[in-house]
Amino acid sequence: MVWDAWGSPSGHKPLSDQIRGLLAQVFGVSGEPVTRRDEGDVPLRASALTPEQHAGLVAVVGAENLSIDHRDRMLHAGGKSTPDLLRRRADGEQDAPDAVAFPADHAEVLALLKYCSAKAIAVVPFGGGTSVVGGLDPARGRFPAVIALDLGRLNTLTDVDPISGTATLGAGLSGPQAEELLARHGLSLGHFPQSFEYATIGGFAATRSSGQASAGYGRFDDMIMRLRVATPAGELDLGRAPASAAGPDLRELFSGSEGALGIITAVTLRVHPVPETTAYQAWSFPDFATGANALRTVIQAGAAPTVMRLSDEAETGLNLARAGDIGGAAVGGCLAVTTFEGTAAHVAARSAEAIELLAAAGGTALGEAPAQEWEHGRFAAPYLRDALLDVGVLCETLETATSWANLANLKAKVTAALTDTLTAQGTPALVMCHISHTYPTGASLYFTVVGKQAEDPIAQWAKAKQAAGDAIVAAGGTITHHHAVGADHKPWMADEIGDLGVQVLRTVKSAVDPAGILNPGKLIP
Amino acid sequence: MVWDAWGSPSGHKPLSDQIRGLLAQVFGVSGEPVTRRDEGDVPLRASALTPEQHAGLVAVVGAENLSIDHRDRMLHAGGKSTPDLLRRRADGEQDAPDAVAFPADHAEVLALLKYCSAKAIAVVPFGGGTSVVGGLDPARGRFPAVIALDLGRLNTLTDVDPISGTATLGAGLSGPQAEELLARHGLSLGHFPQSFEYATIGGFAATRSSGQASAGYGRFDDMIMRLRVATPAGELDLGRAPASAAGPDLRELFSGSEGALGIITAVTLRVHPVPETTAYQAWSFPDFATGANALRTVIQAGAAPTVMRLSDEAETGLNLARAGDIGGAAVGGCLAVTTFEGTAAHVAARSAEAIELLAAAGGTALGEAPAQEWEHGRFAAPYLRDALLDVGVLCETLETATSWANLANLKAKVTAALTDTLTAQGTPALVMCHISHTYPTGASLYFTVVGKQAEDPIAQWAKAKQAAGDAIVAAGGTITHHHAVGADHKPWMADEIGDLGVQVLRTVKSAVDPAGILNPGKLIP
Repeated sequence: MVWDAWGSPSGHKPLSDQIRGLLAQVFGVSGEPVTRRDEGDVPLRASALTPEQHAGLVAVVGAENLSIDHRDRMLHAGGKSTPDLLRRRADGEQDAPDAVAFPADHAEVLALLKYCSAKAIAVVPFGGGTSVVGGLDPARGRFPAVIALDLGRLNTLTDVDPISGTATLGAGLSGPQAEELLARHGLSLGHFPQSFEYATIGGFAATRSSGQASAGYGRFDDMIMRLRVATPAGELDLGRAPASAAGPDLRELFSGSEGALGIITAVTLRVHPVPETTAYQAWSFPDFATGANALRTVIQAGAAPTVMRLSDEAETGLNLARAGDIGGAAVGGCLAVTTFEGTAAHVAARSAEAIELLAAAGGTALGEAPAQEWEHGRFAAPYLRDALLDVGVLCETLETATSWANLANLKAKVTAALTDTLTAQGTPALVMCHISHTYPTGASLYFTVVGKQAEDPIAQWAKAKQAAGDAIVAAGGTITHHHAVGADHKPWMADEIGDLGVQVLRTVKSAVDPAGILNPGKLIP
Repeated sequence: MVWDAWGSPSGHKPLSDQIRGLLAQVFGVSGEPVTRRDEGDVPLRASALTPEQHAGLVAVVGAENLSIDHRDRMLHAGGKSTPDLLRRRADGEQDAPDAVAFPADHAEVLALLKYCSAKAIAVVPFGGGTSVVGGLDPARGRFPAVIALDLGRLNTLTDVDPISGTATLGAGLSGPQAEELLARHGLSLGHFPQSFEYATIGGFAATRSSGQASAGYGRFDDMIMRLRVATPAGELDLGRAPASAAGPDLRELFSGSEGALGIITAVTLRVHPVPETTAYQAWSFPDFATGANALRTVIQAGAAPTVMRLSDEAETGLNLARAGDIGGAAVGGCLAVTTFEGTAAHVAARSAEAIELLAAAGGTALGEAPAQEWEHGRFAAPYLRDALLDVGVLCETLETATSWANLANLKAKVTAALTDTLTAQGTPALVMCHISHTYPTGASLYFTVVGKQAEDPIAQWAKAKQAAGDAIVAAGGTITHHHAVGADHKPWMADEIGDLGVQVLRTVKSAVDPAGILNPGKLIP
């Protein structure tokens, strides 16, 4: 992952002439990309680690696994939200963790936490570095120093149980690494969020990630059978059975704990055989309300496809549903994508039932091609964002979820909040939306905002984000469906869980992290 | 609910001559029922409530809703495990709560908890009184007095949302009351545990109940969208969306909290339209392993029926799968029951897929009748237990869950533990088992034990239960899949969640119940 943009350099490509023409027309943006600083030229805040602390950390992980190297520190300087990237592209000194530790295993993570707790060093657990909510900011809290704890060496696949359909994956395995190891056993996890190519198993669990195939395979938290967690106060090994009534489900306290309550080192996950076959079917609906109602009908009937998504009129129009082809030939109305995975018999049975329901609810079948194109380009959007940022266009996303009955209201309120705040700043923007995750009782809404960058694009977006968050909370949505809380959503946590809920989280933290070293400033207000 | 047995007097019936003959033959039990004490003749421990406390409680709920009546206290004296019933049938004084409060609503529950916290009165929340794990014992802990807080008046249905398929149900609604209120809107919850006729919405949530239709509608905790909880430290209102990544899911901390962390006063639940149609299909498998493998195949293919159960050879032989017909004409091998609910189209599609898989996995279709008979008699087993206890036969159940790969091992270990301990006491027993809840990664095991009562049947069962619990933990199962922890499973909680997990629960309790008045002695070691 490059330090000031998404992904690998090979994934980056300049905007097409078509898109540049569109941007010039709509936003008056000339389309000349800025030159970004070479990473070697970027001054970093000096490491605050004392020689004694450095030696103490080296004693745990070994000299070769404790780095104060400029490049290592830069690559662990935070996540990949648009404000993160804008900050990195700004002039001046950058903040970074004071060192990066690469522990070998669960025992070394435990030992690191014990040492850092005793020596008052803050710890930010680091997986793929894909947070878009400030969850990886190298915040020191009340401590003089902070280290990034990189979980990349916890990369094993163990306890493969094809009968039960479970496997234990190290927290540091990236999405592709996990799928590759599982594929050797004929198995797949089926968790494909947009961050798939870089994000890790531990990060998925710590942030309650949700993948594009969630209708078929569930959210990541649904897949978690067992969690191994290291904390400064000791370790936890949670989850003994596929279901239990043995009191509160403590897995659900550490799933979503974002490194603030412990560090997840291994996760036993529900997996499934690599699908025998995949069927694709795209749809057009006359409008978003009709399309949303159709998706609702299918999921409530228990006939959910593996993937089921619906773009609104604006997104369909710009064809952002196919991120690699922005501005290409657009279909009218609202585009929906469905895929069906499994055995041939299951795909046949399930797709027959779902297709009948979608057609009866007003869908026009568009054939396989648009659904296959969506799948082909589904990890490309963050690269497109980088190219847009480079030419002075603001591009950011945010997401929420609510009940089916409240979906149109929430969508309208958030759209208005974003549109109004950006227009008021003299930068009218395009706000697009899609449903990417459906449940029997409701769905997620994922918004993409594109507009011209103002003089201070960080302040520009902060106003829009504040308005959108307030609108979400006021309209009864959740402040985040799958991006997590981090630093950016913390202001709305009391709205989400109430003051007593916040107090419960604080109390839990005091039990497992008495010194408060774990990811300071994140999650818990 | 009668005080010393299950259910209503009209549900009780003497054993058939056929069963009595069988009991005489197998256990040498004569079959003459004992005469039970009239409830008016049972001496109760004197109420320890002071006049000041009595007046204080009356000030919250009104004189007509605070009872120290003999009968009210008896009816709130505990749950319905076999040891509970044996204790009630024993001579001598009975323990009971010092008073029973019947608050009107959430605000009165909050006020009661505030008062009891200030005045050092223990509180046992009481729903349907169906706990079989000692969860309702009127334990005082370190307090001089304990009250039962009966939630029966919290019995409203509000916020019916047929679009989203959600409704908010008062904690005190029993299963039938909830279904009746929902049916007026054409909706159903579909939660049918064996305790259905008496157990309540709040109890289902507080104990992580699982109903017989869990394959179709999920466990009760899966259905919970929103929880309203009263605690001595204030209130919680958790759950804003069908799914969220806003940190730990605190609903999962209060779901399964068994009255020890707060009192659940209302639950917003996922509901569904009353099924258009139900299809029934019973099966015979040559043995338990083949049957279990068939169930696994179906649930892993995503083709689960609404109900899917499998009795082992012993249970099938005794025909306990049809509890009203014990000793009746038995089928050989292992009996399985499947039902399919939903729209006609969904039932047709789903049953076609499942039936093909079950047949391919070695099942012989037995037609509809045995599945319909099972459904007809499915709430009768606790009445049968009472009739058995009356004639000197011990009858009790226990349950666990594990992965598919570990299922046969766990079943063998628990069966051996029960058989060995009871045989060693000179009372060889019959141990039967069924699978009643299936998941992609594993299943539950539900054991029924029948044998001759020893001189001290409570001590006799305590030894068997201890051995079974130890065997479950040693073999990797959960100490409870759906009966909850209460007092009886507390000794195994540290095995289940570890010492640090126990510490986390204690810490959470200190935040929401600083005085420790909530259900002392339950759940948390």
